[in-house]
Amino acid sequence: MTSSPSVEVVWRQPAWIAAELDGEAVYATDEGKMALVIDLARRNVAHGGGPFGAAVFEGDSGRIVALGANWVVAQRCSLLHAEIAAIAFAELFVGTHSLAGGNYELFASSEPCAQCLGATAWSGVRRLVCGAAASEAEAIGFDEGPRRTDWVAQLEARGIAVTLGLLATEAQKVLHAYAARGGPIYNAFASAG
Amino acid sequence: MTSSPSVEVVWRQPAWIAAELDGEAVYATDEGKMALVIDLARRNVAHGGGPFGAAVFEGDSGRIVALGANWVVAQRCSLLHAEIAAIAFAELFVGTHSLAGGNYELFASSEPCAQCLGATAWSGVRRLVCGAAASEAEAIGFDEGPRRTDWVAQLEARGIAVTLGLLATEAQKVLHAYAARGGPIYNAFASAG
Repeated sequence: MTSSPSVEVVWRQPAWIAAELDGEAVYATDEGKMALVIDLARRNVAHGGGPFGAAVFEGDSGRIVALGANWVVAQRCSLLHAEIAAIAFAELFVGTHSLAGGNYELFASSEPCAQCLGATAWSGVRRLVCGAAASEAEAIGFDEGPRRTDWVAQLEARGIAVTLGLLATEAQKVLHAYAARGGPIYNAFASAG
Repeated sequence: MTSSPSVEVVWRQPAWIAAELDGEAVYATDEGKMALVIDLARRNVAHGGGPFGAAVFEGDSGRIVALGANWVVAQRCSLLHAEIAAIAFAELFVGTHSLAGGNYELFASSEPCAQCLGATAWSGVRRLVCGAAASEAEAIGFDEGPRRTDWVAQLEARGIAVTLGLLATEAQKVLHAYAARGGPIYNAFASAG
């Protein structure tokens, strides 16, 4: 078993992230931030990953804190959805287990699945902004899991403002292009074996 | 920002796991497996962690595949609940992004929060067995998050058998002892700053 202290779960930012994206750019508008995470989703598909991108921004400055994409297959971990990656790398950057000490925003190219919804609640972000609707991800075969129908209100009750459907048409295009090229739909239990 | 490819999120099994627990032991019964994860939760509190333990077992042999506990504060990551750790280390051990290729069982000393519920759905485990009820964790201040009331049926619809309340009294004792010693309740947004 894996109890040896030398055994480590390691998540890495793929090299293409730094090569293709400007981590020092500042994003003044919600549309600019959403366009970045949609671009990230598109590029992730081109590099063999899943069609989902996310980022944590510093709300006041518009700076990128961390980028994430769906690296489930490449990094061999079912947890590694885009939002999870963005949260984990943001907390690494900030150096604590919570982002609640600052004004941080999570942008995601699609609505969160059940897992990422819960992770968002615990992350300490103040705001969640989503592109494509969950129904769009489901339409191409991804299971969003056991989410509550009132999940937006549940997040807002925990101090997280939620905006849905920003640049939704652009975000959907990435999902549809992924389906058209026959990308693997791996997060449904039945097809994960 | 954190886009450098040299930036890594790393999760480690604390050294006390290998020092105190026998990773080679075989657990023939559900009660034995649950007693182990409750013991893990208790020991994790003694080492400064949260009062939650989990493990992935190979269902047929009863061998431990991976152990996890709540290492949110120690490893500076809001994601790092016991179930998340057990799933991540189990997938590392198996070497794929899904446990669906085998007969794996997840045991947890308490019912999963919203995040871990979703993560369980995507992990490929065939079975989830829980000790303390969510209401017990909530009674000492932990927020279980936006879970569906029919979450058990939702998991079962995805091929995951669920057993609740195994050794619940023993599992509750760890939560109550943690509360009595004033352990930090860190996963609620309001108290996470």
